[in-house]
Amino acid sequence: MHDNAIRLMPADAEALVSRALEANRVTPENAACVARALVAAEIDGQVGHGFSRVAAYAAQARSGKVDGAAAPRVERAGTALAAVDAGNGFAFPAIDAAIEALGQMTPETGIAGALIRRSHHCGQLGAHVERLAERGLVALMVANSPPAMAPWGGFGPLFGTNPIAFAAPRANGMHLVIDLSLSKKARGKVMAAAKAGEPIPEGWALDAEGRPTTDPHAALKGTMLPVGDAKGAALALIVEILSATLTGANHSYEATSFFDAEGDPPGVGQTLIAFAPGRALQEDFTTRLEHLLSAMTAQDGVRLPGSGRFDRRAAASRDGVVIAPKLHAEILDLVTA
Amino acid sequence: MHDNAIRLMPADAEALVSRALEANRVTPENAACVARALVAAEIDGQVGHGFSRVAAYAAQARSGKVDGAAAPRVERAGTALAAVDAGNGFAFPAIDAAIEALGQMTPETGIAGALIRRSHHCGQLGAHVERLAERGLVALMVANSPPAMAPWGGFGPLFGTNPIAFAAPRANGMHLVIDLSLSKKARGKVMAAAKAGEPIPEGWALDAEGRPTTDPHAALKGTMLPVGDAKGAALALIVEILSATLTGANHSYEATSFFDAEGDPPGVGQTLIAFAPGRALQEDFTTRLEHLLSAMTAQDGVRLPGSGRFDRRAAASRDGVVIAPKLHAEILDLVTA
Repeated sequence: MHDNAIRLMPADAEALVSRALEANRVTPENAACVARALVAAEIDGQVGHGFSRVAAYAAQARSGKVDGAAAPRVERAGTALAAVDAGNGFAFPAIDAAIEALGQMTPETGIAGALIRRSHHCGQLGAHVERLAERGLVALMVANSPPAMAPWGGFGPLFGTNPIAFAAPRANGMHLVIDLSLSKKARGKVMAAAKAGEPIPEGWALDAEGRPTTDPHAALKGTMLPVGDAKGAALALIVEILSATLTGANHSYEATSFFDAEGDPPGVGQTLIAFAPGRALQEDFTTRLEHLLSAMTAQDGVRLPGSGRFDRRAAASRDGVVIAPKLHAEILDLVTA
Repeated sequence: MHDNAIRLMPADAEALVSRALEANRVTPENAACVARALVAAEIDGQVGHGFSRVAAYAAQARSGKVDGAAAPRVERAGTALAAVDAGNGFAFPAIDAAIEALGQMTPETGIAGALIRRSHHCGQLGAHVERLAERGLVALMVANSPPAMAPWGGFGPLFGTNPIAFAAPRANGMHLVIDLSLSKKARGKVMAAAKAGEPIPEGWALDAEGRPTTDPHAALKGTMLPVGDAKGAALALIVEILSATLTGANHSYEATSFFDAEGDPPGVGQTLIAFAPGRALQEDFTTRLEHLLSAMTAQDGVRLPGSGRFDRRAAASRDGVVIAPKLHAEILDLVTA
């Protein structure tokens, strides 16, 4: 932490972010929804999806690359399948609509899906599936994103880092959440190294000619390596088809940047799947899950994925969330821009 | 190929395998279903899921570890969700029932799922999702299997190699199929090295104390490393919950071996999800998929996953499928055992 870092209570941070967006052609309802998501990501330690995004979001709303007034439209593509048109607005209102639709369908259908198109950066996926776990559902989510990885054997950016998230409800309310991108390392780490003028370790990225590189600038013009090599690249293709080909969204290689305010809307997609567990089970799902998780943590050195976030949330609601003065000033400027 | 290898036409190979199973307490219907799956795997080059399994299957049917007369029972756990009790029989009849149920549900529901419990080794998953693609569906399948991988941070076998498969229909009938296990390398390669008395490369496996090993015997007592390290281990947990916790199957760490005839039935699980694409799309799904696949193969060096199987199938239907004399003799012995 910086010595001179500023601390804001979560509700105050949300109000600040919301005002910054409202001052930039975002409706109050959408601004509040986006602010909740960004502040939650910051608190959960996903700082690449938190405060650092506010300026870019505001600039895109200003330029019209994101429609800050868009309201998601939900249609049925089947009794268990919702198709959500995010209207080239922010992703979070569309995800809210998808979660609502899944919650309505699953008691009857047992499994349901939501296909989101004409969408935008969806931040930390784990938070979205966690909300489905809060409703007692087992949930899976995939998303595509602007081009960053090559298909296996090639070296041109074609897939996004195409994250996968999963959540399962626990009786104690500390729901299991897994959230991972399919690049070996997050692209944000390469951007940070480029900013800091530091090299990146070999094995993270290739340059635009497909050669291993430790130069972050060359890496940003090239591709991120997929986790697990060929298998990770194959998983990225699965995510691409589920989140884009199937939803009607732009494929990753057609998507514009989430960072600048130029060009067409990114138009990416997200797909959510939720199961209502239990009807086929002799023993309660959460009891069964505890058997599995206990068998895992009985091994020395094993921690459950995502478990660090509960401490971070407790700390934030007690002590507030930290924001660097420069970032704080940047967001304040947006309010009065 | 061995000089003295035997070639059988696919139908003859199926008849032989079927007779070997029928002679060992498997009903003709189940025997034919299992034989189709094993011969198809052999033809597709998945030899670890082909002829080499016949003797173990027959021994398990003889000992009662597998119920060769089981008929899968399908119940609804929701209007879009089938729960299939494989009855501790072979997996393939239960998968057939699941595919049938998914085909019935999806036109109405848009997405549907099938949860299979009290099941067994399900061979090459790709072949199962491919059959859903043949019906015009986009399909995902996961399965658990006897313990082979540790949770991240630990070193006791707890997860199976927990494969994931995916298929999407193509207009030309050469459907896209992805099929991968979540261990860095297949456990079958370690078994083969142990048989041949050869070391394995470092990075494949850990011994029972969690130390890297090149000794295949030590590796078989230890654990296989997950693909992509922590991320692969997290994916194995997702697959475990979807295929076992949610279905009511045994977790991997509770499952007995697929190879020997001792002990309780393995009782593992499989989960299939199918989407009926298109209702939310302005452009046909298969057209959209061709855009994506063309963008991939436009890059030098890129081949579509699973594309080698079409040549193998053409060769097998022309020239037959090769079987080593020793394996052929082993199966013939079963017929008259």
